[in-house]
Order: sequence, then C-alpha cells, then structure tokens
Amino acid sequence: MIVVMTPEATSGDIEGAKKALKPHCRQVHVSRGADITVLGLISITSEPDIIEAVASRLRGVERTERISHPYKLVAARADRSTVYIGEIPFGPGTFGVIAGPCAIDTKENLLNVARRVQAAGAAVLRGDHHKARTSPYENEGLGEEALQIQAEVKQITGMPFVVDVLSVEDVELALAYGADCLRVGTRYMYTAHLLEALGRQQQATIMIKRGFSATLTEWLLAAERVAMNGNSSIILVERGVRSFGTETRNLLDIMAVPVLQRRLTCLPVLVDPSHSTGDRDLVPDATRAALGVKAAGVIVDVHPSPEDAFVDGRQALLPEEFAALMEVDVKPLLGPLGLKLS
Amino acid sequence: MIVVMTPEATSGDIEGAKKALKPHCRQVHVSRGADITVLGLISITSEPDIIEAVASRLRGVERTERISHPYKLVAARADRSTVYIGEIPFGPGTFGVIAGPCAIDTKENLLNVARRVQAAGAAVLRGDHHKARTSPYENEGLGEEALQIQAEVKQITGMPFVVDVLSVEDVELALAYGADCLRVGTRYMYTAHLLEALGRQQQATIMIKRGFSATLTEWLLAAERVAMNGNSSIILVERGVRSFGTETRNLLDIMAVPVLQRRLTCLPVLVDPSHSTGDRDLVPDATRAALGVKAAGVIVDVHPSPEDAFVDGRQALLPEEFAALMEVDVKPLLGPLGLKLS
Amino acid sequence: MIVVMTPEATSGDIEGAKKALKPHCRQVHVSRGADITVLGLISITSEPDIIEAVASRLRGVERTERISHPYKLVAARADRSTVYIGEIPFGPGTFGVIAGPCAIDTKENLLNVARRVQAAGAAVLRGDHHKARTSPYENEGLGEEALQIQAEVKQITGMPFVVDVLSVEDVELALAYGADCLRVGTRYMYTAHLLEALGRQQQATIMIKRGFSATLTEWLLAAERVAMNGNSSIILVERGVRSFGTETRNLLDIMAVPVLQRRLTCLPVLVDPSHSTGDRDLVPDATRAALGVKAAGVIVDVHPSPEDAFVDGRQALLPEEFAALMEVDVKPLLGPLGLKLS
Amino acid sequence: MIVVMTPEATSGDIEGAKKALKPHCRQVHVSRGADITVLGLISITSEPDIIEAVASRLRGVERTERISHPYKLVAARADRSTVYIGEIPFGPGTFGVIAGPCAIDTKENLLNVARRVQAAGAAVLRGDHHKARTSPYENEGLGEEALQIQAEVKQITGMPFVVDVLSVEDVELALAYGADCLRVGTRYMYTAHLLEALGRQQQATIMIKRGFSATLTEWLLAAERVAMNGNSSIILVERGVRSFGTETRNLLDIMAVPVLQRRLTCLPVLVDPSHSTGDRDLVPDATRAALGVKAAGVIVDVHPSPEDAFVDGRQALLPEEFAALMEVDVKPLLGPLGLKLS
Repeated sequence: MIVVMTPEATSGDIEGAKKALKPHCRQVHVSRGADITVLGLISITSEPDIIEAVASRLRGVERTERISHPYKLVAARADRSTVYIGEIPFGPGTFGVIAGPCAIDTKENLLNVARRVQAAGAAVLRGDHHKARTSPYENEGLGEEALQIQAEVKQITGMPFVVDVLSVEDVELALAYGADCLRVGTRYMYTAHLLEALGRQQQATIMIKRGFSATLTEWLLAAERVAMNGNSSIILVERGVRSFGTETRNLLDIMAVPVLQRRLTCLPVLVDPSHSTGDRDLVPDATRAALGVKAAGVIVDVHPSPEDAFVDGRQALLPEEFAALMEVDVKPLLGPLGLKLS
Repeated sequence: MIVVMTPEATSGDIEGAKKALKPHCRQVHVSRGADITVLGLISITSEPDIIEAVASRLRGVERTERISHPYKLVAARADRSTVYIGEIPFGPGTFGVIAGPCAIDTKENLLNVARRVQAAGAAVLRGDHHKARTSPYENEGLGEEALQIQAEVKQITGMPFVVDVLSVEDVELALAYGADCLRVGTRYMYTAHLLEALGRQQQATIMIKRGFSATLTEWLLAAERVAMNGNSSIILVERGVRSFGTETRNLLDIMAVPVLQRRLTCLPVLVDPSHSTGDRDLVPDATRAALGVKAAGVIVDVHPSPEDAFVDGRQALLPEEFAALMEVDVKPLLGPLGLKLS
Repeated sequence: MIVVMTPEATSGDIEGAKKALKPHCRQVHVSRGADITVLGLISITSEPDIIEAVASRLRGVERTERISHPYKLVAARADRSTVYIGEIPFGPGTFGVIAGPCAIDTKENLLNVARRVQAAGAAVLRGDHHKARTSPYENEGLGEEALQIQAEVKQITGMPFVVDVLSVEDVELALAYGADCLRVGTRYMYTAHLLEALGRQQQATIMIKRGFSATLTEWLLAAERVAMNGNSSIILVERGVRSFGTETRNLLDIMAVPVLQRRLTCLPVLVDPSHSTGDRDLVPDATRAALGVKAAGVIVDVHPSPEDAFVDGRQALLPEEFAALMEVDVKPLLGPLGLKLS
Repeated sequence: MIVVMTPEATSGDIEGAKKALKPHCRQVHVSRGADITVLGLISITSEPDIIEAVASRLRGVERTERISHPYKLVAARADRSTVYIGEIPFGPGTFGVIAGPCAIDTKENLLNVARRVQAAGAAVLRGDHHKARTSPYENEGLGEEALQIQAEVKQITGMPFVVDVLSVEDVELALAYGADCLRVGTRYMYTAHLLEALGRQQQATIMIKRGFSATLTEWLLAAERVAMNGNSSIILVERGVRSFGTETRNLLDIMAVPVLQRRLTCLPVLVDPSHSTGDRDLVPDATRAALGVKAAGVIVDVHPSPEDAFVDGRQALLPEEFAALMEVDVKPLLGPLGLKLS
C-alpha cells in the first residue's frame, strides 16, 4: 500500500504521516520524487481498510493506493513521474536526448563531441569512465581520469552527464566528480548492493538498463530496490533482449516502453538505439520507433572517429550523423506526437 | 545471380534472355513484378564473369547482380518493389492500411466494418473465411459462406480484400470468389506445397506472416518458394516472435522491418499491431512504431462488437477506435515521415 | 470430460455409450488405443455431475475423468499408453530405437543400413521419401521411388518403417506402400488438414515432431487434432527448441520428456538426438540423457557415407558408430533404469 | 597462447618461463591448477612461431597451445581438470553430489540435513548464508549467523561446504568462517569486481552458476576473469536458461554439459536439478539426465520441512527423498556409466 502526499505537504506532514502509519506495517519508506512524496508501507500488518481510514485523517495526505504488484514504490500511479538529470526533465510530454561516446578516450574527443551534440539538440552527455565488459581481455576504460575529463567538459559546456557505475566505490567516485546521473548497466541489473548504494544517495539520478533477458517485473524490482533505499529519481533504459536472431545485436523490445509507461510504472523509459541494434545504420529507425511509442527519450552513442573508439565503434554515429538524426528523424516528429525536446 | 530486365523489355526480349542464359545454369526463373521483370539463375554452372558478359549483350537487360544469400528472387535490389493488392500500392513512400475483423461472422457486421474503416482511411479489407487455430476445439470460421460475404461486400464498397488460406483447396476457392490477396498464416509459413500453389497463380498477391520463431532467412525462403513458382507479388507481415515475456502476446520485432526493407529484401513489410500485442490498448503504440520504422503499412483487427467476435476479441478495435487511430496516430505522422496513405 | 471404457467393453457397449452420452455434449469422439477405448465429450452441454451419473450406469464404462486442459483425448490418464509401430511397442518400461538415413538415396544404401542397425538393436527403420526443407533450393528427396525402396527393404528385413508426410497426398501414398508410421515434421506441426487426414486413417501410427518453438500445449493440441479424427496411436518426438545458443542446432528440451510423460499426456515421447544437436559427436550424450529421463526411445540418423548424404550428413552416425552407441551407451543403462529394448 | 608446464616443474621453472615469455606479450598469467600449472600469454606481441620456439627451450615446459577462443586459461586442453572442494574431487570419472538447504534457517535444521545427506552419499554441504533475490521484499537470509552455523556443522560432520557470495565483503567473511567453496549466483555472473576478488584468493574453490541467458562464451569469460586473477579451481553449474515455456522454472540446457566438457573448457560442469526445474518431482529425472551426459555432479536442494523453508521450498527434497534419489536414481547408474561417487 502506498500513501501519496499532496504537493503542498510539509516535511512535518510527512514525518507525522510516517509516525502514524508505522504501527500498521513493518516499514515505511519515504520516496521523494521531483513533484510529490510517496510513503510506501512495506509488509502491512493491519487491514487495508484500517490503514485507509488512518491515512484519510492525516494532514498532507492526498490519497492511498492498494498495490498488488511485487513492486510498490515504482508502480504505475495516476500520474507518471518526471525525473531530472541536472535540470533536464524526462517524463510525459518530453523527449530527452542523451548522446556521447560509449567510452571516454581523450578530453579533446569528449569536448569535441559534447559541443557538437549540444549544438544539434542533445541535452545530456554520456561517456563512461569504464565499461562493464564480459571479457577480461577487452578494454575497460580510463577510470578516474575519465571522470576528471567529464567534470571539465561539464564546466565548459554546462551539460549534465551520465556515467556508468560497476561497484559501490564507483558510486562514491562518480559523485565526487559531480556526475548528474549514475547508470547501472545490463550486466549489473541484479547486483543488489550496488542498487542499494545508489538508493542511499540523493545527489544523482539513477539510470537502470534492462538485463539481457530480464522480465519487466525483475527490472522494476531492481528499480524498487533503489527506491526503497531512498532515491526515487530513476530512469529505465530498454536496450533489447536476447533472442535467436543474428541480424541485430539484441532484439529491441519496443513494446516494453508503452507497457511500462502506460501500465506498470510511474518511471520514464528511454530507448538505447545504439546498443539494441549494434549498428549505426539502424539507429535512425530505432530512434523513430522510440518516438512512435512515446519513449521519454533516447541515449545514443556518438564518437568523432568510431573506428578508433575503444569499444562498440560499429554502432557509434559520427557527430554529423547525429546532427542529421536530430534534424531529419527527431525534430519533425516531435510536434505531431505532442512532444517537445527536453 | 539475377538478371534485371529494363522496364521497356518486351516478352520477346525476356524469352530471348531466358534462352541465352539457360546453358549457364540449372534453371532460369522468370519473376514478373509490378514494374520490372527479373530472371533468377538457379545453380549457375558457368563462371559469374562469363554470365555477366553474356547478359550484357542481350536486348532488354538492364543489369546483372550477384546474390550470395540463400534466397535470390526476393533478395534486396537497387530498388525496392511496390506490390499491389487490387490497385492499392504497398512499397516505398506509401503506408497502406488494411483493416477488418479477424474472422467473418455476418454480412451485416462485415459491411458495417468495411464502410467505417473505408471512411476512416483503410484501403484494403481483411476478414478470414476460416482461421488457423492450434486447438481443434476452437472456432474455425464460416468457410465458403464467408468468402461469399466478402465478394458481396467488395462489390458494394469496392475495397479489395485479403483472405487466409490453409490448404491448396483454399487457394482455388478464394480465387473463385475474387480474393485480391491470399494470406499464409504464422502456422503455415513452412508448408511448402501451399507456398508452391500460391506461386503458381498470378491472380492474387500473396501475404506471408512470419512463423512463431522464424528467422528472417527462413521467412524470406518461404517468399522465395512462392516467387520461384512464378508469382513475385509478395508482402511480408511482422507479427511478433515468441519470447519469455508475458505482458504481450508476442514480442514485436520492430527492427526486423528496416533490416528486411533496407538490407535483405525487395519486398514490402507490414506490421500487425493486433496479433503482435494481443491487446487493443497497445495497437496505437505499435502502429506508431510501425510508422517510425517506415513499414509499408499495417493490418489491424477491427470488429463492431469485439466481445462477440469468434476469436481474438480482446485485440480488436471498435470502428470508432480505428477512426481515432487513423486521425490521431497515423495521419499526423505521414507527412513528417515522407509517407502518404496508399 | 472423457469416459474410459473397460478393456472388455464390446463394440456394442461403445456404441451404446456413445448414443447415451451424445445428448450431453456437442460431439462424442471415440478414441481406440492399443488397449483401451476412450470417449471424449467435446463441449459438454450438461453439468459434469449429470454426465457422471449417466455414464456410471452404462455397460462397459470403467470411469469418467474431468479434464481441464485444452486437450482431452491425449491428456494424462491413470495409465500411460503403449503405442505400436508395426509390432514394436513404445511406452512405459520399454526403450525403442528407430534408426536409418535422414533421406533415402539408393536401395543399396538403405538395405545396408537397415541390416546393420537391425543387427545392432534398432527395431524400426527410418528414412524419408522426401524432406521438408525451408529452402526451395535444397534437395527434397526421391519421392515415390523412396517409398518403393522402403517397401522392398521392409520385405527383406521385416523392420517396420517410418516416413515423413508433408501433404494429404503423401499420406495416401505412404499408406499404399505399407508405411507403419507416418511422421509430421517440425515445420508441419500446425498444419491442420494434414493432422486431420492422419487422424482419419487407422492403418499407421502417427509421429509428431515438436514445432521449432512450440509450447507443450500447442504440441499436445496437434496430437489432439489427430486423436479427435479417430486415431490415438500417436508418438511425440522432442527435437529441441529455438534459442539464443549457437553451439548446437537446437536447444534439446530434455525435461519436456518427463513433464509430458508424467503429467500432461498418456502418449509416449521419443528424443531425436540427431536433429536436436545437429552433431554426430553429441548423439551419444543426447541418447544417454534420453535414457536418463526415461524417454520411450530415440530416433537416430545413420548413413553409410554421411558426407554423401543428401541432407544433414554432419549429424548422421556411421553404422559402426550406431552399433557402438547401442553397445556402449544404450544397453548398459537399460537394466539399471528398469527398461528393456523394444 | 598458453604454455603448459610439466607436473614436475618447480617454482623456479615457472618463474623462469614467465620471465622469458614476458617480452612476447602484454601479460603472463600464472594459473595453478590442482595438478598442472599453465601460463596464459595475454595479447601476444610476437609471432606464435617465435613464442613456440622460445618456450620449447625452457625448463619445465611440457607444450604450448594456440588458443583462438576469447578465453584462454579455462579453454579445453588435452586433459580435463579435476577440481576439489575440500578434498572432494570433481572431474572426469567422478560424480560429486552436493546437497543441503537453499537457505540456512537454524543450526538444528542444517545439522539434521547434513547428517542425513552425508549418510545417503552427499560429499559436500550446501546452504547459503544469504540469497540473491530479485525482489527487495523477499527473505534474504541470516547472513553472518548462517556462516557461524555452517562452520559448526562442518566441525561436527567433516563435510566441506559451499556458500554463496554477493559482494567482495562476503568473500572475506565466508573465507573467515572457513568456507571451502564460494558460489557466484546466476544474477552475479557478470559482476566483474566480485569475480576478481574471488580470483585473488587461493583458499576456496569457486563455483559459477550460469546467468539467466548467458551464452557459453560469456559464462567461460566469467570463469576466465577468475582464473586471470590467480585461481583456476573453478566449477561451473548449469541451472537452466530463460525460454518461452512455463512448465518448469527454467529450461535445463542439458547439452551444454557435454559441449563444455568435451569441447570448450577444461573445467568440470555440475547440474542443478532443483533450480533448473523448480519442482521436486522432476529432480530425479534431471539428476539422471545429468548422469547421462556425464556431468561432474549435481547440487541438490534438501530441506527437512520444505514448506517452512525461507525460499524455494517447492523444489527442495525431504531428506528421505534425497536418500531415495541416491539409492534409486544415482547409484545404479554410476557403474554402467564408468563413474564413481566423489
């Protein structure tokens, strides 16, 4: 069961509600979104009717909702959440574009890409300080040096940035360099202590990529674990699932976006047209499909010289290809879909 | 290896080329498309260089192409084909909408639906005379009576119509009632003698739905079998593949559309937003995704009283919902995508 | 609901029961197994209690069973069926080995293989008169000539034989040559009119291979369609499902065997260690796994010169390898598993 | 490229070889197995011929092997490895049985189970101190208290024990309590820093369960990451993959065992008949299938009162059922398969 507070509820109201509801459940989780605060009652011990009666008399409570899914805090609600990376909104009515190199190599390259994608309409910069690789022999990135580069590029361009985190230490390091969004990769979607560490900080938004063959429920439970630990600023990224086909790197499950956004969760869902297809020629089609289903945005690999990229060069767009993507594929569709660029 | 004839090539030119090329392969297949004729050289016995030299001296030959795929006649070529159902084009630059009930129950219902979907912008009427069902206990449709109804509704509305065929006898029956397009269902994509019978007639266009977990190569080989038997007017329909998810009936493989249309085949590819999702609420999203990837069109279940439908009622739109789909979801996106309604 | 007749029930008893039960359902299907006869009541129109009361007073009725699965005639019952190919039993307590070339090329080869597999312990000969191929360019077999060869080899060796059937005409042809078992391939598992034609004849046993990604329910519904048409002598063959792996041709779903045989169906289930793995080196392992789960047997590709085989040579055993399989892998495990060779 | 040392090679020989080979590659990894030591040359910079010539002159070198897989240290070699848990061997010719509760609840229960499974033939005790759960609301186990219980039970029974580890801290904790084998669960197969921490310790053997839909290559790369960090005592556990079926919890990929053990890796592979099926009634079948493919053993859930188990009760055997499994299903098959109990 969740208790939704009014937008006007004060900290005192929230504390009061928490105290009043505590006797009726094992735990009360306070989840502060961009606009509203929601109290999640974990393992309730009183009858729902009784809790509803109690809640209805509390100051600052808008309504209660009975949730039957295994996830509660991230479940669909009357209103979908808008989640921010820096000051960039991701949520209903907006389409946010995140772009940048898959892995960071030099400051020159990153700044070059950042300026060009920003000029073309990207709102957030991506660029990982190290990569989760399945093979221990593949390049794993620059590490802390890359974070330093990102912080400098942010200072110059003003673009908020997203970095990947593979461990609890990474979380602290990335926050120290002012990362605006911390991303949990496909391979780490089930790693509980990482999700818990992410939930315990309030500084950065969390982005969770879907596991290789994660069900929607498992994916939302990963988000729930973050939210339960105190941070509900969460964005999901669909990046394709494993299947029998060989033409694309993964099978983009495009319908997961509306199933999630309309029915299952209050969180925004992005599409990754680069990793899902593994093929730069298909990025425009995947981006238009993402627009078609009204995803909250896309996260796109862009690199100034893809053939020199540490990893995943085959799927990265050139900066000029990204500019064309924005002009030809994204912007003309926004108006007809009732969306605007974040 | 294929030999593409010029649009101006005469029957005499084609016969001449066929005769001249026969000594260099096991078989020459003549494939007459809407605009151009292509000769497919099966199991060539001379060197490609020699065949190219021979072909270059023949009257009416535009060019030769070396094809390395297991399919040849339906492989991608410089120009994608436009395939017609009646006089309605499906191909580059157009978006064709096919709508109607999944199974036909009464003439009243069919005429009612036909008039309303036609008014809303559908160009072709669907409605099966019987259904391929996995269970022998499920309703399997009206059979010949349904074909009679369709012929009558076509006479009144002028809309060409698509019917499903499950056997060689069905093909003959459907042609006798003037069907404009014969559809091979998901369960019959591998049924060789049915595909061969379809290829041997020139009267109707053939539509091939993707098998439950067919690879793109297998699907194109089914089309190739039809083309080899003489009919290259073929449309493919993506309807989702089997996967581990349970939220939608199938996993819509939206990226199969651009992979096929850009790279693998000259044939147009439609999306079935009804059977892929199994859920009427998701039909608009799936349709917009189909537009996003520039599918050649969609085929949509519409029924005046879905709860009374013989089968698949849960996924059928009401006629008024279909009209809204066309107004809200389809038409506003056509222009920005450079498409027009067929 | 099904009504199980006693083993002693006469034709008169069966006719009487059928007549008495007809008013309570839409249709009564009579399914005569090797040992017992079962009446399947399709779409019952009376309350189950009433039907049970009616049935309990009929002569020759052993018991009634309420079946909630979508399949009824092939559902699990107190006793699993033993199904015969010729006089060879497939069912509880036995392990039947079927062997032979995937496609028949010459009489010499077939007779050679037949004698050698028979000497090694195979009870039934396989050898297709033509093959269902996805590609129209691949070899499709000798057709009727192969049936003639099989009939001659049967006369010489006395081994019953299994052939594949792709169409209703094939069924008639194969029966004319005395085939003991007609096999529906993976690509044809959903082809309703073929299943119906197979059900309408009583001369041969039917073997149904699992579709590429068929669920167990779909597979049993294919069997049900055969049974409904009058022939319940049906054997199922597990041959692997489609998955993301590339090391074997298909993913052998070994646990489908006990799930089917223990819980879902009265029919025997074989394993195809050749087509599931696509690799002769893995055939012994797959055969031992089949023994481990107490499959009713295996069907193995054997060819005297695999490299010359029309199709699937890479997975065929040499006759001497088959003999080793029987001696080393099969026979030593039979006793400890409580099985004996059919 | 790998360099295999002779069993008699001294530490000095190994150091000498390492030094001599260093100029020819980016890194030399020393991997000490139970019997032999292997040097893995990562990213070679000289021609293979030259390295082979250099190696052939070194003392203590048995042979070099060119490895083209992305994994090197865990690749298949002439001889498969025997890996030990405590003193219990897992490898060619043996079948090792690990049994115990999925999660530990009380010492009484664990000791009770340990004594009974030991009497029945189990060699190693399993029992997790906490469980990786996808849902943050599910029971996650006793933590350190469970390790204390396990250490006490080991002292009493002498059985080595396996525990799961979810984080680097877990590794240290489990080693402090004397765990003999540390298990990386399905959800953590890709967690690089955990794998690296496991590789850096020599005290315990590592067990790696297959990810939900991990390819065999990805799974072996996880093992490679452990081995690269210095510990090659690794056991793999097949526990089923995600598929479209619903009858069992996962689809047991039984053929992965011989594909791995015969072709791809030197490491032993176990089968988990409990988690793969999720169903205690199917555990005997899955165990016999594991024997059939000559898996190195099984790991089985056993609980004295499954209905009270924290998690996964539906798949746990009662101790008496486990005893029956050993007597009826395991022991009779060992001799005929040329195996003996570890």
